Amino acid sequence: MPNPVIDCLMNHRSIRKFKPQALEAETLETLLQAGVRAASAGNLQHYSLIVVDDPEKKKALLDWPEAGPVTYIIAAVDEYRFKRWAELSKAPFYFDQAVNLFIGYWDAIVALHNIQVAAESLGLGTVYIGTVLSSDLTAILGTPEYVFPAGMLVVGYPDETPELRPRLPLEAVVHFNGYHIPTDNEVNAFFLEKNKLWNSLPASRREKLIEQGITNMAQRATLGHYTEEFIAGESKAIFENLKKAGFKLSEPGD
Amino acid sequence: MPNPVIDCLMNHRSIRKFKPQALEAETLETLLQAGVRAASAGNLQHYSLIVVDDPEKKKALLDWPEAGPVTYIIAAVDEYRFKRWAELSKAPFYFDQAVNLFIGYWDAIVALHNIQVAAESLGLGTVYIGTVLSSDLTAILGTPEYVFPAGMLVVGYPDETPELRPRLPLEAVVHFNGYHIPTDNEVNAFFLEKNKLWNSLPASRREKLIEQGITNMAQRATLGHYTEEFIAGESKAIFENLKKAGFKLSEPGD
Repeated sequence: MPNPVIDCLMNHRSIRKFKPQALEAETLETLLQAGVRAASAGNLQHYSLIVVDDPEKKKALLDWPEAGPVTYIIAAVDEYRFKRWAELSKAPFYFDQAVNLFIGYWDAIVALHNIQVAAESLGLGTVYIGTVLSSDLTAILGTPEYVFPAGMLVVGYPDETPELRPRLPLEAVVHFNGYHIPTDNEVNAFFLEKNKLWNSLPASRREKLIEQGITNMAQRATLGHYTEEFIAGESKAIFENLKKAGFKLSEPGD
Repeated sequence: MPNPVIDCLMNHRSIRKFKPQALEAETLETLLQAGVRAASAGNLQHYSLIVVDDPEKKKALLDWPEAGPVTYIIAAVDEYRFKRWAELSKAPFYFDQAVNLFIGYWDAIVALHNIQVAAESLGLGTVYIGTVLSSDLTAILGTPEYVFPAGMLVVGYPDETPELRPRLPLEAVVHFNGYHIPTDNEVNAFFLEKNKLWNSLPASRREKLIEQGITNMAQRATLGHYTEEFIAGESKAIFENLKKAGFKLSEPGD
């Protein structure tokens, strides 16, 4: 039962090479309008979208000059706007708690994802940038309290046509009426194709990894890519951002 | 520059009334396939999708018998599957930290949002359910460590055609090259249409709210809907879920 919408979703690729052509204002407006039509908890839009095309600010967010005149769009959890409204309405403000952080994160990401899907439907290329979580939005973009980075999307005109990347088999990811704890054999079957990618790496690349003590794809994902230092550093910066934003992330008395 | 994809995104409505008609297996498969094509950090799919149609389990997740034979789809942050793969590959596991929680949340939500968009493109009706964050997935669905609820979608055949709900003006939500701290006048302008909704409430409803000390829309959103008790209760349950999942949410030594 394919249709143009499902075709678009099924053909998502992340794009990392762009033409030297900036987004037109009208196109950007279309993307943003699609973004804010996404579902939002209580229709309160607990997020902001920050469009960045200033080269210096882009550099501070993600130093990627070879991407050219692409546009960065940040989605941030935002309870600051609600707080201002509450103050003017003599309503109490207590949306600084765990549920607000996660519901706001959800709101922010679906708005940003609408933008990604809309952009791809127009032939634009995009890629999500996870390190925005550890970016200092207060220093770079002047975000106030109760604003926390949720996601960032790079949007531009694609200059590559990558293959679809294989996903895990559906049975690895989908559970019915309960979480299926897989046997070791099942786990091996889930990751069979991913494990095989080791042999498709260029021999020189593989040798270099082996020198680092990396002999398979799971070790490459951890030791070779998301190292313990990287994970710890990103997490530390996220704690800083949560503190700066003022979201309460531990139980009172903990 | 409308196209069928952007039209679909622009026409999202949450549906809360469904026909007594269950989702066909083939349709569900199409939705799930669209879900897993969503972008995923490092192509590692840090999430699981749990499909629930068992009436007892549905009741435990969201007691909504009048919705009929709808399907619930839960997206959960999942680093348990990765941990099992790491163990079998003699790779270290340290994906239990703040960055993993948030990146996993992002991954989970974009997969679920693909499912929502795909469902709407097929004429199905859907609604997101935020209280899944406080649901005890371990008790209800047997989720193991490093699995944390991210979002839930209800999917069925729609039996209502609600109007589009108004969003805040784009200038309230979108910022360019920096966060614009609005003046009070600007905040009032952002919420002008929302504030006006007070007068469109039925008089009897308004009277009841006034008896509770609620005299405008911001007070209704807080005192009348997301009460301090509700926010605290949901947040407490979220802390429990984070602890149960084993994600480290405070800085070592804090």
